[in-house]
Amino acid sequence: MSIKKICVVVTARPSYSRIKTALTAIKNHPALELQLVIAGSALLGRYGNAVEFIEKDGFTIAEKVFMVLEGENPTSMAKTTGLGVMELANVFYRLQPDAVITIADRFETIATSIAASYQNIPLIHIQGGEVTGNIDEKVRHANTKLADLHLVASEDAKQRVIKMGENPDMVFNTGCPSIDLADEIKNNPTLDFDPIQKYGGVGVEIDWKQGYIVVMQHPVTTEYASARKDVEETLKAVYELDMPTFWFWPNVDAGSDGTSSGIRAFREIHKPQNIHFFKNMEPNDFLKLLVNSKCLIGNSSVGIRECAYLGVPVVNIGTRQNKRQRASNVIDTVYDKNEIIKAIQNRMDAKDIASENIYGDGQSGDRIADILANTELSFHKTIMY
Amino acid sequence: MSIKKICVVVTARPSYSRIKTALTAIKNHPALELQLVIAGSALLGRYGNAVEFIEKDGFTIAEKVFMVLEGENPTSMAKTTGLGVMELANVFYRLQPDAVITIADRFETIATSIAASYQNIPLIHIQGGEVTGNIDEKVRHANTKLADLHLVASEDAKQRVIKMGENPDMVFNTGCPSIDLADEIKNNPTLDFDPIQKYGGVGVEIDWKQGYIVVMQHPVTTEYASARKDVEETLKAVYELDMPTFWFWPNVDAGSDGTSSGIRAFREIHKPQNIHFFKNMEPNDFLKLLVNSKCLIGNSSVGIRECAYLGVPVVNIGTRQNKRQRASNVIDTVYDKNEIIKAIQNRMDAKDIASENIYGDGQSGDRIADILANTELSFHKTIMY
Amino acid sequence: MSIKKICVVVTARPSYSRIKTALTAIKNHPALELQLVIAGSALLGRYGNAVEFIEKDGFTIAEKVFMVLEGENPTSMAKTTGLGVMELANVFYRLQPDAVITIADRFETIATSIAASYQNIPLIHIQGGEVTGNIDEKVRHANTKLADLHLVASEDAKQRVIKMGENPDMVFNTGCPSIDLADEIKNNPTLDFDPIQKYGGVGVEIDWKQGYIVVMQHPVTTEYASARKDVEETLKAVYELDMPTFWFWPNVDAGSDGTSSGIRAFREIHKPQNIHFFKNMEPNDFLKLLVNSKCLIGNSSVGIRECAYLGVPVVNIGTRQNKRQRASNVIDTVYDKNEIIKAIQNRMDAKDIASENIYGDGQSGDRIADILANTELSFHKTIMY
Amino acid sequence: MSIKKICVVVTARPSYSRIKTALTAIKNHPALELQLVIAGSALLGRYGNAVEFIEKDGFTIAEKVFMVLEGENPTSMAKTTGLGVMELANVFYRLQPDAVITIADRFETIATSIAASYQNIPLIHIQGGEVTGNIDEKVRHANTKLADLHLVASEDAKQRVIKMGENPDMVFNTGCPSIDLADEIKNNPTLDFDPIQKYGGVGVEIDWKQGYIVVMQHPVTTEYASARKDVEETLKAVYELDMPTFWFWPNVDAGSDGTSSGIRAFREIHKPQNIHFFKNMEPNDFLKLLVNSKCLIGNSSVGIRECAYLGVPVVNIGTRQNKRQRASNVIDTVYDKNEIIKAIQNRMDAKDIASENIYGDGQSGDRIADILANTELSFHKTIMY
Repeated sequence: MSIKKICVVVTARPSYSRIKTALTAIKNHPALELQLVIAGSALLGRYGNAVEFIEKDGFTIAEKVFMVLEGENPTSMAKTTGLGVMELANVFYRLQPDAVITIADRFETIATSIAASYQNIPLIHIQGGEVTGNIDEKVRHANTKLADLHLVASEDAKQRVIKMGENPDMVFNTGCPSIDLADEIKNNPTLDFDPIQKYGGVGVEIDWKQGYIVVMQHPVTTEYASARKDVEETLKAVYELDMPTFWFWPNVDAGSDGTSSGIRAFREIHKPQNIHFFKNMEPNDFLKLLVNSKCLIGNSSVGIRECAYLGVPVVNIGTRQNKRQRASNVIDTVYDKNEIIKAIQNRMDAKDIASENIYGDGQSGDRIADILANTELSFHKTIMY
Repeated sequence: MSIKKICVVVTARPSYSRIKTALTAIKNHPALELQLVIAGSALLGRYGNAVEFIEKDGFTIAEKVFMVLEGENPTSMAKTTGLGVMELANVFYRLQPDAVITIADRFETIATSIAASYQNIPLIHIQGGEVTGNIDEKVRHANTKLADLHLVASEDAKQRVIKMGENPDMVFNTGCPSIDLADEIKNNPTLDFDPIQKYGGVGVEIDWKQGYIVVMQHPVTTEYASARKDVEETLKAVYELDMPTFWFWPNVDAGSDGTSSGIRAFREIHKPQNIHFFKNMEPNDFLKLLVNSKCLIGNSSVGIRECAYLGVPVVNIGTRQNKRQRASNVIDTVYDKNEIIKAIQNRMDAKDIASENIYGDGQSGDRIADILANTELSFHKTIMY
Repeated sequence: MSIKKICVVVTARPSYSRIKTALTAIKNHPALELQLVIAGSALLGRYGNAVEFIEKDGFTIAEKVFMVLEGENPTSMAKTTGLGVMELANVFYRLQPDAVITIADRFETIATSIAASYQNIPLIHIQGGEVTGNIDEKVRHANTKLADLHLVASEDAKQRVIKMGENPDMVFNTGCPSIDLADEIKNNPTLDFDPIQKYGGVGVEIDWKQGYIVVMQHPVTTEYASARKDVEETLKAVYELDMPTFWFWPNVDAGSDGTSSGIRAFREIHKPQNIHFFKNMEPNDFLKLLVNSKCLIGNSSVGIRECAYLGVPVVNIGTRQNKRQRASNVIDTVYDKNEIIKAIQNRMDAKDIASENIYGDGQSGDRIADILANTELSFHKTIMY
Repeated sequence: MSIKKICVVVTARPSYSRIKTALTAIKNHPALELQLVIAGSALLGRYGNAVEFIEKDGFTIAEKVFMVLEGENPTSMAKTTGLGVMELANVFYRLQPDAVITIADRFETIATSIAASYQNIPLIHIQGGEVTGNIDEKVRHANTKLADLHLVASEDAKQRVIKMGENPDMVFNTGCPSIDLADEIKNNPTLDFDPIQKYGGVGVEIDWKQGYIVVMQHPVTTEYASARKDVEETLKAVYELDMPTFWFWPNVDAGSDGTSSGIRAFREIHKPQNIHFFKNMEPNDFLKLLVNSKCLIGNSSVGIRECAYLGVPVVNIGTRQNKRQRASNVIDTVYDKNEIIKAIQNRMDAKDIASENIYGDGQSGDRIADILANTELSFHKTIMY
């Protein structure tokens, strides 16, 4: 039996966490060969240098693709994507994979989808079928229509992909590999490192040992002009609550400068004594930090997925996660200081939040590798109705 | 009331015919302003120089976008598309349209879709919801998922787009503007020019006045290696039938060289005395040629759409039109000389083929302009289920 | 007489200072029309947002060209340049200028040169004929060989351009427009603003009123790995001297991260109490700051040019300015803490440094406009020997 | 001793002939490793498919780079070059050569120069220092200023490169490798194949055995609008002379369509009975054809170089070869039917044209390999004055 070459394109720090255990499973599977391509902001220091963590985790990188055009506005997002198509077309031409995996719904993931499908390489989409809003929503479903095999993270998502006209035989609910990481942490939740000592970061030394909250807020692409105002509401709420807080800088997106400069300005003016800022953290350490926190605040999908499994209370702000399926750990609110404070207090009072399996059971990586090994892949498809 | 700026991107000769009457209607509508962008192979002499016909038809061209990367293989298709995204992002940034129209399903049409939707410009997709095969199939449905408003050509297509999760309020069956052109011809079908005198072309002077057939065969993208073999079967069939034939060169696609060199080689060897070759023809003249022909042979969508309305018998070969809805004018066959001959004979014996309205009634252009003027456009959407 | 359209491409903050008075003179000249294109890092917030100063100065921007590919390594420098050629080709095609001006020797300036000369547009090179090192040296002379008209900043440079085989009739020593700005300041040198109040910046409030030094150090492209080590030597020297210091962040170049992260790390560890950091300053304010300083330290060409005219003492470190002609204001040294300290002390003891005219007399902008208006431009040339 | 990796970028059919023996010598040299990159029109069927000849000659191709943007106008020339920089930057990043060779002066050769020099890879320029006109003139000298080592084809060229400010220790007159090929033919000049049988081509079977002339005329970039008119003069002259003629289609350049369509139109109208057309020929066969011809007509540099060594009479038309050094075999004329006829007759009457060595002695390939092996390469340089 011949070995299938599976090319995975990781274009951003958060995408890596969503695929890591699948990468390991592909690498270790006797019928598969992993071709790992790191691209876009995953290569850039100012978005957390994901590539370093990836190499440290023992993965061999087949190609690095610099494709981010500076500008951080909608035009540069489009042009980054166009450049990505051109570059990835070359990469796939050279690597000649048997299949290409594109992950989720970031704007540049459609570059992977086009470069693969236009070259008649079977395309596999991870984590289609969910519902959010903004450009992510369009990109995710367009990826579904370009893909030949769908590995989704929830039953809800599976039904949605099938409804869109995909062949049910090619849609599998594998759960999300990010839950595999969460599972390890769930089984071993001790916070066995000092976050500030290990990761540095900027801001005052906060006394986090008596309890802390975590904030991770990304700009919302189609409203990037308001990114700065949005982040200010969260900053004011957290500042007023005056609880020890770890705050994570946003990753790349149009508007990143809005959010980032909002944070910088706030720091200069208010010199908050309860917030310490991090740029990045190894995924495992980040989950340990979460599981030991009182609450996660912001608009990260980690709150919806991993925190559901870990039973971490979450205040989800704004529209970024839109209609993604929620477990009972999440409360939603809007960008308003007072509402955010109220929601945080609600979550801190919540008792015994149950772990829920809706985004996976901790076995997604292996399940994905097995499906890749055992499914006959094609680059032809026709809508089912 | 402010005027809506509607930017239409035409990337190929056949797309122009599919949109022409809508362009006229937009241009003439008091509430709309037309921004016409000509791109890709529509600018190139060796694909018929569509741009010249467009200018001759009185349209002002807002921008010309050279984006075709030479190579005519799947990799250059992907890279042409990536380049198109980059170039069109600039164009839309400059023109600041209120909406962008992308047409149908050629591989490069997704460049228009990405460049518009990523810049938060409402995207309108013309002629989604149909079913064919190959890369066109993927591109068409991905365009649907990136688009905010859908103007489809048949009831069948409308239902399919809605099933895919689009908001029914944003899906309109306008019919295909190409049928508007067909309608003019249907009302005035006389062949009032000598094709060879007017268009030159190459090959012998055939005696077409006693009846002729027309061939138009494009390479099928994902099988481009076999494009040459495919065209040879059709050539042999037409050569053996020895009826006066007008043959149109294929337009750009991966494999164009396979088809073109197949034709060239056949000409050199067999010096066929019954075939005259054209590179291009004005759309109106082409339809007049069809309506006066005995039969159209090949795999062009003209056979499925316009010929249904005109009642022209059609032999459709191979998978290119796949599951597109057929009227009674069409008979399908495969790339086999004998089968093609049989099918042609069957069609020539067919009597009184009825005109059918499934792809439009001749009013599509005006209907499209009215919908554009009266529909509130947005660049946000969420799947309906 | 027809008006000549002169298209000037500004790709970086420092280039703007070198051309500003010429832009004004072109804009005001009855026989000329200015088409100002802002590109590359001049558009980006993290390199000082030059575009804002430019608009504030009253210039209309004909086109903005985003072309900086993130990565800050030699490969991304090359790709940024390639992208620049593609984008600027479009821009010149649209603007149809009668001549294009490319400025000096930054790596991306050759993109302007290629996009213009390949489209048969007369190319004017500002500030050729100088001698430095590294990639700047190659780029500058390549620009000379692509250009049709040469407006250089010193007699030395003029002779060198002629020696390279250019037609002496097309080489003019106009002086450097940056000296025009310096001339205004020389005539009105009072420091009439509080730098920290006006520009914010980061770091402690230093007591600058009793005298201060200024540091501006850029990474040297071909040695970018050592950029961090280089900046540390300067940091240590300035820290040890403990004099009030204004330090300017470097502008974009490969290695920018080396220099920037060196500064950031030093700040975190040593928390220097004598250094205040600025990201950017309006050119006029910057010159006022210099003329009132005790000394400029670093490797900026401002030290070689403007400071010669202003009589400001300069410690020039390393190879970046290499063989550029020096006035008596400059002392050269190497990247070694002790040597830098020694050189600074030498310059602070220097008395009455004379103003020297070698890079211009304050009339360059008008002189450039007149030459543009009165010289017949061509896009053909042949080497003179 | 470590092996030096020498990366050679061949972007067009004629460049291959100019480097072929050097490629062989590099490949065979114990201290060198050849990394051969084939790019641009050298990959395209409609420009003669040089890549096939190259593979047939036994060379392994390290990378193929598709970079030709369709359009064949000055804008697409510029954009092809920009795309080339982007693509070649990737290629050099992957191949990590110790030096890169760029050949001569075609417009896209500067892409190789930039991609190498910006990545701090020593750049070697073959055949600098000559003088022609048009954009080639600018590109050639810009390549010189970007290059670190210069391997030129004549003493005249060597002196010119040194005059331009290059270090004399880095300028070598190796002669032109194309003369090495010519030398083989000179020693074995029999026309041992039937050109029409071996290469097909189009047009009538001419009776060439009693003597024939050869035409090779390329469009002149900066005058592409007049390319068609130019070629018509030559066509009329050759048609009127009515001697058996082999005519070679032009290779890619802006204006190629002008020349090509000029030829096509002439063929359709006049159906010339004395001209047979070829698209391409293996270099050796082409030289044999020349050495047995009565005269070469057109503007190819083959007439200036190889024909000097072979003693073949040449009518050089127009400005394309401008000031390149001539041997006694050449007579120059202008694009005028009558003048061309007169010049051809003059050349046919010329007796015993001597072989001249000005462009090489037949040992260039080996000489180049030896210099590459024995010269210490750097990517730094400074102008000598």
